[in-house]
Amino acid sequence: MSSPDLIALAHELVDFTRSNIPQAQVMDIQLGTYDGDTIVLDAPLTPNVNDKGCAFGGSLVSVMTLAGWSLVELALRRRQFDCDVFVAESTVRYLAPVWNDFASEASLAPESNWETFFGTLQARGRARVEVIARVPGDTGPAATMTARFVAKRR
Amino acid sequence: MSSPDLIALAHELVDFTRSNIPQAQVMDIQLGTYDGDTIVLDAPLTPNVNDKGCAFGGSLVSVMTLAGWSLVELALRRRQFDCDVFVAESTVRYLAPVWNDFASEASLAPESNWETFFGTLQARGRARVEVIARVPGDTGPAATMTARFVAKRR
Repeated sequence: MSSPDLIALAHELVDFTRSNIPQAQVMDIQLGTYDGDTIVLDAPLTPNVNDKGCAFGGSLVSVMTLAGWSLVELALRRRQFDCDVFVAESTVRYLAPVWNDFASEASLAPESNWETFFGTLQARGRARVEVIARVPGDTGPAATMTARFVAKRR
Repeated sequence: MSSPDLIALAHELVDFTRSNIPQAQVMDIQLGTYDGDTIVLDAPLTPNVNDKGCAFGGSLVSVMTLAGWSLVELALRRRQFDCDVFVAESTVRYLAPVWNDFASEASLAPESNWETFFGTLQARGRARVEVIARVPGDTGPAATMTARFVAKRR
């Protein structure tokens, strides 16, 4: 798939997400970039602020979870797999407060690969994959997430 | 503190949270109960739904995180400690889809105790505590969280 096609597919998914998940709309997530390996979702601070004036932890984990979910959804849509995708487990570290609009980048974890994932999905109708996500900060990540997602053929 | 006093204090905190964290307002969290050991926050499905018609994972983790944060905040407020409370790390398991309005219960993890927490806070101005939270489901928890919170004297 060409780079403009990938970006068009990602825009379509973000529009779908904003229309079907009210929290995605309220958090005002936007597509940053998508190159097939990494997706970046952007979110403004204002709707995601906490009582201390920095980003609410729940918004950070939600945007990282949506970035991970989008990465898996897009891998499936590119190959015309019709699946439900669920987050099964995640571990999040909140490393530094986020005082500005923020981004969340998600990509496949080093221990996972798409070949195994699609092989299992083809064989069993269900497969899992590990994703890593992070919210970049001024001097290193402000938050990180490792998460396991499960895809199930409809 | 008497039971009505505890509940009044918890209502005050939930009002504060809804006024100062836009996402708490949008997720429409409400106080279920608070007895000094466990806090229950309730949330309706409608603003927290996903594209599959069940609860969005980001909302589940956000409500569990808010329940844990509220538990620590209330322990501090009851003892007149003026602190900032942050979530530092959390591990979440999503065990079953949630198709209805839901609740999140939070209490101290077995390995933590308030005496150590307040002793450290008194001595160093900063202390950590482990909290467990869960979203009850029909046949066991639908989601669980273990999280570490940090309190820092202002």
